[in-house]
Order: sequence, then C-alpha cells, then structure tokens
Amino acid sequence: MALEETQTALENQRIHMLKEKLFQSGVDAFFISDLYDIRWLTKFSGSSATVVITKQHAWLFTDFRYEEQVKREVQGATPVIVKNTLEEELKSPTYNFGAKIGFQADKLSYSTVQTYKEQMPNHEWIPLTALCDEFVMIKEPAEIESMRKAVEISDKVFDKLLPLITPSATELDIAAEISYWNKKFGADKDSFDPIVASGPNGALPHARPSYQKLQPNNLIVIDMGCVFNGYASDQTRTVALGKISNEAKSVYNAVLESQLLGIETAQAGISGKDVDEKVRTFLDEKGYGKYFGHALGHGVGLQVHEKPVLSKRNEKPLMPMNVVTVEPGVYIPGKFGVRIEDMVVIHEGYSEPLQKSPKKLIEL
Amino acid sequence: MALEETQTALENQRIHMLKEKLFQSGVDAFFISDLYDIRWLTKFSGSSATVVITKQHAWLFTDFRYEEQVKREVQGATPVIVKNTLEEELKSPTYNFGAKIGFQADKLSYSTVQTYKEQMPNHEWIPLTALCDEFVMIKEPAEIESMRKAVEISDKVFDKLLPLITPSATELDIAAEISYWNKKFGADKDSFDPIVASGPNGALPHARPSYQKLQPNNLIVIDMGCVFNGYASDQTRTVALGKISNEAKSVYNAVLESQLLGIETAQAGISGKDVDEKVRTFLDEKGYGKYFGHALGHGVGLQVHEKPVLSKRNEKPLMPMNVVTVEPGVYIPGKFGVRIEDMVVIHEGYSEPLQKSPKKLIEL
Repeated sequence: MALEETQTALENQRIHMLKEKLFQSGVDAFFISDLYDIRWLTKFSGSSATVVITKQHAWLFTDFRYEEQVKREVQGATPVIVKNTLEEELKSPTYNFGAKIGFQADKLSYSTVQTYKEQMPNHEWIPLTALCDEFVMIKEPAEIESMRKAVEISDKVFDKLLPLITPSATELDIAAEISYWNKKFGADKDSFDPIVASGPNGALPHARPSYQKLQPNNLIVIDMGCVFNGYASDQTRTVALGKISNEAKSVYNAVLESQLLGIETAQAGISGKDVDEKVRTFLDEKGYGKYFGHALGHGVGLQVHEKPVLSKRNEKPLMPMNVVTVEPGVYIPGKFGVRIEDMVVIHEGYSEPLQKSPKKLIEL
Repeated sequence: MALEETQTALENQRIHMLKEKLFQSGVDAFFISDLYDIRWLTKFSGSSATVVITKQHAWLFTDFRYEEQVKREVQGATPVIVKNTLEEELKSPTYNFGAKIGFQADKLSYSTVQTYKEQMPNHEWIPLTALCDEFVMIKEPAEIESMRKAVEISDKVFDKLLPLITPSATELDIAAEISYWNKKFGADKDSFDPIVASGPNGALPHARPSYQKLQPNNLIVIDMGCVFNGYASDQTRTVALGKISNEAKSVYNAVLESQLLGIETAQAGISGKDVDEKVRTFLDEKGYGKYFGHALGHGVGLQVHEKPVLSKRNEKPLMPMNVVTVEPGVYIPGKFGVRIEDMVVIHEGYSEPLQKSPKKLIEL
C-alpha cells in the first residue's frame, strides 16, 4: 500500500513538471502525442492516445478499446473515451484549452497538424520539440529497478545461449532462442530484433540474422535486449567459436579495453561528446579508429534508443540518473566485427554498469 | 537468371507508375520518406532512407551504414550515400528537382517539413497523402508468393502450439513458442507481438500475454504472424482448453459462420464497407453484433496493417490482387472472446483464403 502511494505521488509529479514548463513556455496547453511520453507521464500503455495538459487540468483521450485499461493504468490525468474523431471531441465546449496550444512538432505528422489547424482554427498552434526529453532522461529509482530486471533477464538469456553456439547452429537459430528465453524469463517482449552476426556478417553494424551457419574459428556478435515492465535492456557480447586469429584477439582486447575506459570516463558532469572522444582516441591510437563508425552510446528507458547520446553531437554534461549504453565497436570489412555493450547508470564521480554477463573473451 | 530479369523489370515498373503519377500531379518531384513505400519501390530494406523521383531520375539517399546493402538491394534508383545531413546533400547543384516538390504529409513529421522548407526555400512544398497506397495494395504474384510462404510458416507454428496448450502453460509460454518457431521455420521475425489471451483476457481485443495460466474449460484466442522476405502473415485461431460452456460453443459457431460468410462475400467489385456490413448484420441477427467492436479486416503486405480496410469507412470496391484479412470477433466481457482470422487474396468472383490451419472448434 505504501508503495502504491509513492507511485501515485511520482506520477503526479511528472504531470506537475510539465505544468511548470507550461507556465514558463508562454503557451496555454501542451498536446502530447508521443506514446512513450504518454506512458512516462500517465502510465497508459495502449497504442492510441493524446494527452492534453493545461494549467488547471490534464486529460488522456483514447478510444473504446481501452475503456477498461485506462481505469487500471492512467494516473494524474482524466481519461476520456473518444466516441467519434479526436478533433470533434477536442472542439467540445467541455474543454478550455486557451488560445495558444503547443504541439510535438517532431512527433506529429504534417497532416495531423494541418487537421488540428483546420478543425480548431481559433487557436494559435506553436511547434515544440523534445518536450519531455529533459525529464524522461533523468530516471527515477523505480525506473532503474525495472531496467535492472530487464538486464537480469538478458544476462540469464546470454547464459542459455552459450552451449547452443556451435558450427551446426545458424544465426537465426540463436536469434530464435533469444526471443524464446526473453519471454520464458518473464520479459514483455524483445526490445528490438536480435542481431546474431557471425564472421564477416559481424562487420556490418546493422546485420540481420540469416540462415548462415555460425562460422568456426571466427567471432560472433550478439546484440539483444528485452522489455520488462515497459523498460528496455540492450547489451552486446562478442564470442569466439573455436580458435581465432591473432588479429581478431587483438581487436577484441582493444574494444574491451576501450569499453572499460568508456565506463570509467562516463559520469555526471562529463559531456556525451567527451566520453565518445576519449574512447575514439584510444581506438585511434590502437589503429582501429577508422573501423569504429557509429556513436559510442545512447540513452535507454521506455525506448531502447533515447537521449542522451554519447557522440560528438552531444556537448551537454551527463546528469545523475541518466542511463546510457557504452558500446564501442570495431568492424574489419570482410573479416569480422567486435562490439561490447553494457548499460550504465550515471552517478556523481562514477558510472555503474548493469550487465553481469562476462566480457573476457569466451572461446567456445 | 530469367527470374532476376523479371524482378528488375517489375521494380522499374513501380518507379514508372510513380513517374506517371508525377506527370499527372502537376508537381516536379516526389519526396518519398516512408520506409515501407521505399522498400516496395526500390527493394531497399534499411532503416533510414529518402527516395526522390523526378520526371527524369530516381535517387535513393541513405547513410554510410548501408553502403554495401544498397549495392545488393536497390533497383530502379541511383543510390547516394549522404556524408553530412540530407538537406545539405539535397541542396547540391548536382540535383535538379524542379520548382514544386510533393512530400508525404501523412508520413513526415511537422518539424522535418519545416526543415525542408527552411533549407530549400526556393521550392514550393506540396503536401500529398497516400502517395503509393493505390499501387501498393494491388499485389504482384511474387509478393503473394512471399505471403503464402509467411502463411505456411504460421500454419506450421500453429501445429506446434496445439500440444503445448495445457492448464500448466502460461499465456507468455505460448507466446514464447510462437516467436521461437517463427524464426526456426525461417521467418525474418514476428510480424507483431503475438496475442495469447485465455478466458476473460480473450474478451479484450488488444490483450497482451501475461503470466496467467491458461484457464481450463474456456477459450484461448491466439493471434500471430511472421514476416518472410519482408512480407507479413496474420492469423487468429480460437481453441478450447477442456470442455466449454454452451454459450461459448454457440459464440464460436456464430463467429465461424460469419467468417466463412465474409470470405464468401469478399471479391473484386464489392466494397470493404459491404463485406463488413454483411458479416455485422449476420452477427446482429445472432444477437452478438454489439460484441463485435472492431473492423472486419485490413490489407496485408510489407506491413501487417495496410489498405484496403474492410469497414464502414471504405466505400471503394475491392480490387483483384488485394490481400486482406477477414477477422470477425465476438467479445463477451468478463467471460471470453472468439476471433477467427484468415488472409484472403481478392479475385474476380471469389476470394482465396491463404491459411490452412483448421477452423472447426478444437477442444484440447
């Protein structure tokens, strides 16, 4: 019971933070359309909704399919089941949204905005971007707890995979096991389609699992994650099937060292750019920098990719309770790839890795 | 080799159809941003791309991650690897897009359109909707062949599930098997998160699988699908675990009869509305109409939900080579739900169901 009360208080606090922002923004209402933002704000997990926040009220509009679900889930906003179209409902004199309405310009289609403008012409429509991101990326303890559980599942799934990695298994066989064990261990679902990429396939950072059998005496990149209680996990391990070349070992060790350096560097007050640069410089010195073609990491939460990013594009300091991946990768075209990825919680003075799956080279 | 040549010819024909539309539309270029439309048009299956079609040319813009993949996949358009931002690339004097550019207003965010307008102010930007839908919904034989294979996998997966449906299995256990066997039988992935909903959960049309054990002496709704060669399958079966009530049997038989009536009614020249109405009237007469709260069906292709829909909103006639689901459902609140769904190919005078999984009530 006590826990329930705390949760309700936190939910209301999220709406409260948006209301504070509303007062500062000079608009009268926020229209929130992104389903991840809506879940964060109200706990509603359905596939169709719009939240409207004014200085006095908050409503969640959805359809008849969610009549029962809104009663169980929605916190801090009044649920409204829309009978006809959303625009008709919103035009009703029941609501007083004020003159200036801010909308999520980066989340709504151009057509939808045009429909709003045509149907509700007496409002001024103000495009806003990244409306909730600054709040969403600072996690609460309960959110980190959900991610810890998602990571625990991923660690257990990884253990299940190791004995199955043999030259007779295909990449798709291993991917099938990942999806299977995610659910068997209690995940809601995969957080993304698993990547299992053997040998030269591992050199394609966005490889998809194929019918190809796992290549002996080479490396296999396994990138996977699940969703628990709405929150995602994301991790990558690279393992060897049989004996691998000295070049492969040397790349593996360089990536592992660089990943540990990234975890050591990431902490509150350091920018995403600086962490990325530190790891990139290290790999440059090892001669592998030109094979590291993507950003070092990204935020994780209700979405598997969210803010903040660890890349040259993010000059802002990391904040306590950010959760980000640290995932350097070196991809040698035509030969193999190595990527090692953990999620870390950012604290003052250090970062805390969530995954426990081993990172020392496993030779199967 | 002959097959390859045919495929290239078809691809070029798709670009050609868009060019014909361009000539009729009064604009000088189409900007195509929807990844499913891009895959349909060019075969490119990556996660980031924009296609531009003018009266003379077609280009596909993507990033360095897909440098290899565009060479293998893209047909009928010149691939361009964008070094910096897309807008910078598009402003280059290499291209001559003309004065009027049509964009996908229903697929692009308001912000992205604003960026285009700011960065390329010398063009007139014309909002267009449903740009490719009229073409995409008429399937070619090779596309139907891919869907047949996806359906074959789903039929085999359903066979695997039946012995596992026992009172000791949870909904999530069965969902795990679906995701596992989809991949083991060669699917690229699930086409959506499987629904396994037992007893009262089956009365929620958008139930998610839970830790709940399958309820004996009640019905279980299993809605699942996979993707093969990019194309989706989608099917629902409802099975009984143990002996079920006369009410449940009577609902099951009514839904099955109504589904067969739907398949019989669906054919070229009949509107989506008329098929929906025929099935709805039948269920009304049986006294269950008020428990059938969703549309009768939807198109299937590269996406699991596309056009045309079978609902009161679609007054247009179905066309030969449309592929649609026929999926009436009756949901008795607090008790159980029944939904039966097949995909059918629309022909002149009849429709052809693709699924072979049994529809007579299975009592396990």
